[in-house]
Amino acid sequence: MMANIVGVAMGSISDWPTMKLACQQLDNLGISYEKHVISAHRMPDELQAFGKSARNKGLKVIIAGAGGAAHLPGMIAANTTLPVIGVPIKTRTLNGVDSLLSIVQMPFGAPVATVSIGESGAKNAALLAAQILGVEDQAIQQKLLDLKHEQRVEAKNSEQQFD
Amino acid sequence: MMANIVGVAMGSISDWPTMKLACQQLDNLGISYEKHVISAHRMPDELQAFGKSARNKGLKVIIAGAGGAAHLPGMIAANTTLPVIGVPIKTRTLNGVDSLLSIVQMPFGAPVATVSIGESGAKNAALLAAQILGVEDQAIQQKLLDLKHEQRVEAKNSEQQFD
Amino acid sequence: MMANIVGVAMGSISDWPTMKLACQQLDNLGISYEKHVISAHRMPDELQAFGKSARNKGLKVIIAGAGGAAHLPGMIAANTTLPVIGVPIKTRTLNGVDSLLSIVQMPFGAPVATVSIGESGAKNAALLAAQILGVEDQAIQQKLLDLKHEQRVEAKNSEQQFD
Amino acid sequence: MMANIVGVAMGSISDWPTMKLACQQLDNLGISYEKHVISAHRMPDELQAFGKSARNKGLKVIIAGAGGAAHLPGMIAANTTLPVIGVPIKTRTLNGVDSLLSIVQMPFGAPVATVSIGESGAKNAALLAAQILGVEDQAIQQKLLDLKHEQRVEAKNSEQQFD
Amino acid sequence: MMANIVGVAMGSISDWPTMKLACQQLDNLGISYEKHVISAHRMPDELQAFGKSARNKGLKVIIAGAGGAAHLPGMIAANTTLPVIGVPIKTRTLNGVDSLLSIVQMPFGAPVATVSIGESGAKNAALLAAQILGVEDQAIQQKLLDLKHEQRVEAKNSEQQFD
Amino acid sequence: MMANIVGVAMGSISDWPTMKLACQQLDNLGISYEKHVISAHRMPDELQAFGKSARNKGLKVIIAGAGGAAHLPGMIAANTTLPVIGVPIKTRTLNGVDSLLSIVQMPFGAPVATVSIGESGAKNAALLAAQILGVEDQAIQQKLLDLKHEQRVEAKNSEQQFD
Amino acid sequence: MMANIVGVAMGSISDWPTMKLACQQLDNLGISYEKHVISAHRMPDELQAFGKSARNKGLKVIIAGAGGAAHLPGMIAANTTLPVIGVPIKTRTLNGVDSLLSIVQMPFGAPVATVSIGESGAKNAALLAAQILGVEDQAIQQKLLDLKHEQRVEAKNSEQQFD
Amino acid sequence: MMANIVGVAMGSISDWPTMKLACQQLDNLGISYEKHVISAHRMPDELQAFGKSARNKGLKVIIAGAGGAAHLPGMIAANTTLPVIGVPIKTRTLNGVDSLLSIVQMPFGAPVATVSIGESGAKNAALLAAQILGVEDQAIQQKLLDLKHEQRVEAKNSEQQFD
Repeated sequence: MMANIVGVAMGSISDWPTMKLACQQLDNLGISYEKHVISAHRMPDELQAFGKSARNKGLKVIIAGAGGAAHLPGMIAANTTLPVIGVPIKTRTLNGVDSLLSIVQMPFGAPVATVSIGESGAKNAALLAAQILGVEDQAIQQKLLDLKHEQRVEAKNSEQQFD
Repeated sequence: MMANIVGVAMGSISDWPTMKLACQQLDNLGISYEKHVISAHRMPDELQAFGKSARNKGLKVIIAGAGGAAHLPGMIAANTTLPVIGVPIKTRTLNGVDSLLSIVQMPFGAPVATVSIGESGAKNAALLAAQILGVEDQAIQQKLLDLKHEQRVEAKNSEQQFD
Repeated sequence: MMANIVGVAMGSISDWPTMKLACQQLDNLGISYEKHVISAHRMPDELQAFGKSARNKGLKVIIAGAGGAAHLPGMIAANTTLPVIGVPIKTRTLNGVDSLLSIVQMPFGAPVATVSIGESGAKNAALLAAQILGVEDQAIQQKLLDLKHEQRVEAKNSEQQFD
Repeated sequence: MMANIVGVAMGSISDWPTMKLACQQLDNLGISYEKHVISAHRMPDELQAFGKSARNKGLKVIIAGAGGAAHLPGMIAANTTLPVIGVPIKTRTLNGVDSLLSIVQMPFGAPVATVSIGESGAKNAALLAAQILGVEDQAIQQKLLDLKHEQRVEAKNSEQQFD
Repeated sequence: MMANIVGVAMGSISDWPTMKLACQQLDNLGISYEKHVISAHRMPDELQAFGKSARNKGLKVIIAGAGGAAHLPGMIAANTTLPVIGVPIKTRTLNGVDSLLSIVQMPFGAPVATVSIGESGAKNAALLAAQILGVEDQAIQQKLLDLKHEQRVEAKNSEQQFD
Repeated sequence: MMANIVGVAMGSISDWPTMKLACQQLDNLGISYEKHVISAHRMPDELQAFGKSARNKGLKVIIAGAGGAAHLPGMIAANTTLPVIGVPIKTRTLNGVDSLLSIVQMPFGAPVATVSIGESGAKNAALLAAQILGVEDQAIQQKLLDLKHEQRVEAKNSEQQFD
Repeated sequence: MMANIVGVAMGSISDWPTMKLACQQLDNLGISYEKHVISAHRMPDELQAFGKSARNKGLKVIIAGAGGAAHLPGMIAANTTLPVIGVPIKTRTLNGVDSLLSIVQMPFGAPVATVSIGESGAKNAALLAAQILGVEDQAIQQKLLDLKHEQRVEAKNSEQQFD
Repeated sequence: MMANIVGVAMGSISDWPTMKLACQQLDNLGISYEKHVISAHRMPDELQAFGKSARNKGLKVIIAGAGGAAHLPGMIAANTTLPVIGVPIKTRTLNGVDSLLSIVQMPFGAPVATVSIGESGAKNAALLAAQILGVEDQAIQQKLLDLKHEQRVEAKNSEQQFD
């Protein structure tokens, strides 16, 4: 069994429909991961523990999705030196502008690698995790090249859908 | 010596010129307080400890100011059942809109009593703390009534400054 | 019969579906309250009277929800020294950004403890009221601790909903 | 002595540098006015009294400037059936976007005739007051036509400033 | 037959569902009006003609609704000294923020009395027109007082809808 | 003497410091132009006349700069079938967001080719005018290619300024 | 067979329902065009090639629609001196504000003629292309005049739809 | 001599004062880098070449800063599978909101790891690059731990600056 090398965290089970898309991409890329609901505001101790133990248990990259006053990605970043990717979840009132600003506007010392709001962001988070892992891992590099090629072909062929 | 009943926290020493105005109002109202720099992202352990110990050491209300991805007020709120007042610090790029949304858009379970951005917010945070303490404390109530009266008189008299 | 210690006001009966969530939380916490429609713009005299009489009739905290040019929370705050919690109601055109800014951007002298826009804000307003009451009331403190514990357990268990 | 027919109110003496521009335009148009500092949040009783007595003392139009959670124009409108013109004062943090939304987003029943943010708004408020008075007053109509003509000539001649 | 004293203009027939609400309020208040589609961008000559002839044909107030780059209210104001009330129509992409800024941010010389975005704005535009007419017209004044009274009663009675 | 083929219009002489940059670029490209202050709100007749006569007097492209409720570009577009380029002037309160939305959000029928806010927009307006003229004019095409080449070299060489 | 003189590009097949409206207008105006899906991020080489070859294969104007971090119009403009018209596609999270800013805020050197967000923008892009072509082409000019006339008549007649 | 493993790119030499802060942090962390001005809009060929050759010449992470319609980070990401960190440069008109949205709102396929606007973002970009490199590099990991420790101590000691 392969060890999990990516940790996927989300602030609420209501973020799962979005964050599931990140997990599916990791599956596609053959990257093993663990996933958790860790509410920054309801489970602050678990959040601390998760951040502090992440590297030791073998994780290499963390993907964290949260909405509104989205503290999860930044607080994980405060507790680890692993790269943390933040996914701003779309919110009902402010469409995720609140999530985006709460995640991206981090002060010096605890960067969060922020991706786009919502579903495309979740999928891109998986890709970015793969890119980070691919810095040293040739197999993942190759998979990313393959995916880039497929996407190019798919985009080109999409013209057949003009009506 | 009076015990400290308000805790004033700020995310960075650069917030002090703003948060000082909260402290001055507390001084004016004769409310004893302790003040700390607690960076959510640089001092996450101290933040947890501060939140968890706040009630036991006698604090009754917490005022927390932070800017940008302002996680401090919300993370304190995650660790205590004391009322937490959040002051959005004005930022250089986004004027504090980021701070405001990061502080006010809290999910159910950990409310932050958010006041206005910047200096007026800091001063109002002290007043709100006094109002909370004044729910049961007649002396503070009286001071708040006196202040309200003074402000009314001052506002009326300000017409003499028309030129 | 327990005296009402929280006053819940809303600017329009159309705010009731949101503000009802605050009332339900107060019910859950066993906090007795009275509720009113007080339109700042249609019932300015009643608004004044409500603010001025609030403390005398035994209220300790006020929760006020309003949308758009949401003047109700601020105008109650102008007429009392009780803590006033403002709930920005989501609006059809601006999603509650107008409500939020109209409520939170109060000048020095009349703070409004602002919570998040819409339903989570309404529920958090009840929690914040309980926190304020809990400063001196041990029973409410305990209920808040219990709720915090339940929410933590619930958040943890929500992982079972991963599919 | 001519009776005052316009009431100019502002929420704070700090609004005077802006609202003075409205007064100067009224002077230019020969319209007599009274001016007041009426803080919605520090002087709620005076605000109510001002609104309720405005028509009886002979005022025909009200100009009200306020910044931030700018409740003054709307609360005057709640207390009178005279037309109320609202001037959103530019604010330090949000540049007057907060003032604009707090003033313009009034619910049905108490409209506020909102003009642009800041200095041009203050000057236009005076012009709008004159237009309202000019509906029945031929002399004011003529002055407005003269001003329109002057502004047209001035705009045309400004081309001489090309360098 | 009563002469029309209010002109209601809209930039497109698609604004009619909103502007109809203004007309209904004018009907309720017994104020006679004429209504037109005048597209600033498709009918610039008719717009000019409408503005220039408005006073001569007996109009006293103009209500103009438009969406997006909403030039209609401001361009009418450029062509008349009658008071012009602008209704920002809600837009599909930007919810009427574009309409609001295009209407309210007028330069000195051509004020537009801007009301809130969308349906409440349209209804308030009629009320504001009545207030302007009511400056000199006792009958309209009385109707406005009656409406204010009714709205107060209605707001109070709405508490019966609590469930 | 070469006939003027570009018309440069601005809503106010205060826009000249920005619009001058457009004129300088036209000079650099050897394109002859005429320039005018045409206030949409103070000079509506001149605006109509300018739009209607533009093609007949030989103009091929129009550049129009305006700020705030920036109606000038759109109203010119309403009166001509020549391409109209709109430059959103930076404003003191809203930094030109109002100008941008008022210019770009035109309805079907009267497009305005909008460029970026402020100085870079003014310079780009001249370039865009040249691109439009260059569709058929080989000499201008060549100048644009030369400019593109120069800018590329200049950008490359700018690395020498690293310190 | 007429040579294609307009190139219509879009960043994704999902932009087709919007961009189709541009194509329909070009059809109405009798302007021949080619259309492509060219994803700036999936097909960067094709994008470069398209930009560089556009003029040589006879295109005179380019219309490019894209959403989100909408790089397509600007990157085409970087590779050609033909006029490029940018259509900001409405996005699910930010309604196209992201698309608008990404397209319009181009630096000096590579202007994009930006039109309004979404469907009206797509239709106007075709019109703007026709206006550019019409600078020298009398037949297109006449079609634009005819369209302007039709739209004026249609707008006037729309009053029959008042109910 | 150590090979460069980070590529720092910026869209204009005017971004250097901000991007210099990223370089200084890389120096502090002992990470070798190369730096370039690569204007997406003036040097599209060099941009393509840089992206395509980045991995082959030994780069492992790319940091790209750009302002306004900030296409540089996204277009590099389109041309490589290396992780690309985007720094939104603060802009004069929109304070970097345009830069932020243009960088972060990337579609699926080409993620950009976006950090905060301006100076803190530039410094955090270097830190994030180090975190990515530190996934496999123990020495860099240790340096990041040391920096985290120093920042914690520095934050704690900053309380001595209370006055």
